[in-house]
Amino acid sequence: MMQSSLQLIDEEAEKKPDREIADLGVRRTERPRLVILGGGFAGLHLVRNLEKSDFQIVLIDKHNHHTFQPLLYQVATSSLEADSVAYPLRKPLRKHPDYHFRMAEVQRIVSGDNTIVTNRGTIEYDYLVIATGARTNYFGMDNIKKHALPMKTVDEALKIRNEILHNFEEALYTHDPQERQKLTNIVIAGGGPTGVELAGSIAEFRRYIMPQDYPDLDIEQSKIYLIELLPELLGPMSDEASAKSEEYLQQLGVDIKKDTKILDYDGEVVKTDQGNIPAKIMLWTGGVSGAFPEGLDDGLVTKKGRIKVGETGQVMGHERIFALGDVASIESKDHPKGYPQLASVAVQQGRFMAENLMRLRKGKSLKPFRYKNKGTMATIGRKKAVVDMPGFKFQGTTAWLVWLGVHLFSLVGFKNKLVTFTNWAWNYLRHDRETRLIIKDSQ
Amino acid sequence: MMQSSLQLIDEEAEKKPDREIADLGVRRTERPRLVILGGGFAGLHLVRNLEKSDFQIVLIDKHNHHTFQPLLYQVATSSLEADSVAYPLRKPLRKHPDYHFRMAEVQRIVSGDNTIVTNRGTIEYDYLVIATGARTNYFGMDNIKKHALPMKTVDEALKIRNEILHNFEEALYTHDPQERQKLTNIVIAGGGPTGVELAGSIAEFRRYIMPQDYPDLDIEQSKIYLIELLPELLGPMSDEASAKSEEYLQQLGVDIKKDTKILDYDGEVVKTDQGNIPAKIMLWTGGVSGAFPEGLDDGLVTKKGRIKVGETGQVMGHERIFALGDVASIESKDHPKGYPQLASVAVQQGRFMAENLMRLRKGKSLKPFRYKNKGTMATIGRKKAVVDMPGFKFQGTTAWLVWLGVHLFSLVGFKNKLVTFTNWAWNYLRHDRETRLIIKDSQ
Repeated sequence: MMQSSLQLIDEEAEKKPDREIADLGVRRTERPRLVILGGGFAGLHLVRNLEKSDFQIVLIDKHNHHTFQPLLYQVATSSLEADSVAYPLRKPLRKHPDYHFRMAEVQRIVSGDNTIVTNRGTIEYDYLVIATGARTNYFGMDNIKKHALPMKTVDEALKIRNEILHNFEEALYTHDPQERQKLTNIVIAGGGPTGVELAGSIAEFRRYIMPQDYPDLDIEQSKIYLIELLPELLGPMSDEASAKSEEYLQQLGVDIKKDTKILDYDGEVVKTDQGNIPAKIMLWTGGVSGAFPEGLDDGLVTKKGRIKVGETGQVMGHERIFALGDVASIESKDHPKGYPQLASVAVQQGRFMAENLMRLRKGKSLKPFRYKNKGTMATIGRKKAVVDMPGFKFQGTTAWLVWLGVHLFSLVGFKNKLVTFTNWAWNYLRHDRETRLIIKDSQ
Repeated sequence: MMQSSLQLIDEEAEKKPDREIADLGVRRTERPRLVILGGGFAGLHLVRNLEKSDFQIVLIDKHNHHTFQPLLYQVATSSLEADSVAYPLRKPLRKHPDYHFRMAEVQRIVSGDNTIVTNRGTIEYDYLVIATGARTNYFGMDNIKKHALPMKTVDEALKIRNEILHNFEEALYTHDPQERQKLTNIVIAGGGPTGVELAGSIAEFRRYIMPQDYPDLDIEQSKIYLIELLPELLGPMSDEASAKSEEYLQQLGVDIKKDTKILDYDGEVVKTDQGNIPAKIMLWTGGVSGAFPEGLDDGLVTKKGRIKVGETGQVMGHERIFALGDVASIESKDHPKGYPQLASVAVQQGRFMAENLMRLRKGKSLKPFRYKNKGTMATIGRKKAVVDMPGFKFQGTTAWLVWLGVHLFSLVGFKNKLVTFTNWAWNYLRHDRETRLIIKDSQ
């Protein structure tokens, strides 16, 4: 009786190899198909603004979630839950009748066939938007790629969290003061916003959490180094912001090494042109390059791996292929080398592209992209932040509050805002970080 | 100049092998040393109640966090952030002057030497409390151990979340209906509280999330099976609770197979004495056994892997070794085979043990443990729960609200309570689960 209710298996069918599924399993409808590669800031904000469009929309990303990269450093330093900075990519367009998400890795564009090749099969497009973002750039230094920890994904941020906490645990088990030194030192490569924010957050962890959590360690011995190639931190920001962020980091006890070039790293010692630093952890925020997919003409890709794009968002020489966000270098008078690779640029380009694609469908002419600079900012610690707005610069507590507000407001998903706010309030009031958890096997 | 400020490395010291560190690096003080093995409910509640004791306290756990196991199923089913059900074990006794946590795996007790052997070295004790909990029991079925997914740790719960979501993604890429069936079927082995709660939660995910998230999948095809060896679910609970939970699960479309024995599982097909079920995922909640450390007399360990303990908490024949929680079988008239392996028993025993240890230090006689049964409960879904209190049983919305309140109240850490409440409120109001994230590499 029960036998029949269970599903029987056709042994024959079992053995047949699965043919590759056409168009990643997305069925053609009467709507023109728009394929979007990448669910970062540009891709997500494009999708969200296509709710009323008549496209069949296919979003492809190798993760099933959007990552709010500006807050990854807080995941890495035990301040925020990983899930708060991620947002499910199946969700943004629930009311659109023909929206499809596919988790796949893009391998190649075959523009002659209007086709994308992924690790899960191919898919045809009528319109294509490339928003594949940026990848960590090691500038050809293989040892660094092998031993340093990058921070572009949630998984990488969690790995940093695990490694830092794990090394502190490990430091309790050694007699050797030099080994202990290596285990408690942390080197951060790159003095841009990510490096500065990481350094500040780790320094606050050392100040507020470590003395209570690790009574058996000499906290003074643990050093945090921030290494920057150029003569100042936060290069693209104002001189005031650079100077103040340096002052803040020094207050928190960060060793800042400017004008210093990293030469090599073997997982034990960071070699620089100014001397060596023993450290089991080096966080790499040294640079990014565009994560362009293969298949485009070499002439279309800049030295920094970005795709050359006209001011309408169209890839040069392709009417139906667009690129935006970090991977795109949109031509403009103000920014001849492309707009800076910032979340705010990507968000504005996403919205802009939605409008242009809908104009295209209506037979209207495409508009040129105009960037509205709303300012840049970085936070170093409690009541320590720097903000550059057009014609208005400020630092300190107000800047910090502005930073908090802007990030909370920009965070994708209302639930994420609530959970993040809860964590921040708790951390602020209690000088605490309860997500100092090693979630992985105990080794 | 800068060279000098960087730390130089002594190449010689580098090469010396590290001697094993004595007592896991914990220095002896004038206080008698109490070593506690395990930071689960029993260990954590013991530690928390020793704030005013004169012991040197050393807590050893293989994770650096406590795990609130009753809510792991919500992590596994995308309802809660992983970090909300974990609590840092370095934190509970911040005000005690001589509290030490060590992340290490206990391997053996050498009671003749008053010593514990761990994977990180040995440590001497004056008093020892064994609170190592329970481990998943596969009843000797190696295939099941190899292919089924257990759920005792945060990491295991996250693995379940990743696998379920990943298989749904995978199902989009196949032509073969039987392969698709296997990818979307989920089998839950064990009809105790964990199995029932998992089945209910997955069934609600299928009902509320899948139709919107996976428009390309035929959701009706995805089946959820709950397999129980005995003729009823929730065996230890009342008949009313068993019957009602079954009714609720049927309403949610769970296929319940009682009186069914699982024989084998190869990762593709679950073999039972009533027929076969194709499924790429089998969650195993089939049973636990005590996770007793080696080194105790064989005669001290029961068939279920629990340590025989007198009513004062002392291990039989050992004056200074105690055991509590899931790993302990404390003798009592009401429960000749030991108290049930429940969080509430462990919490009460933790508190009880703190009192007894302090009595011991004052030369007072030890008290016998008395369990105060406050009831048991399980939740199946929205407004669907069952509660058995002594002399009072109820089900439905009230039971569900009681379940929510009790779990929120019991959750360790105020921040965790806040974040969990936020998630629950969101999930309830929006029929949503925003933590449906695959956080791992994209493969």
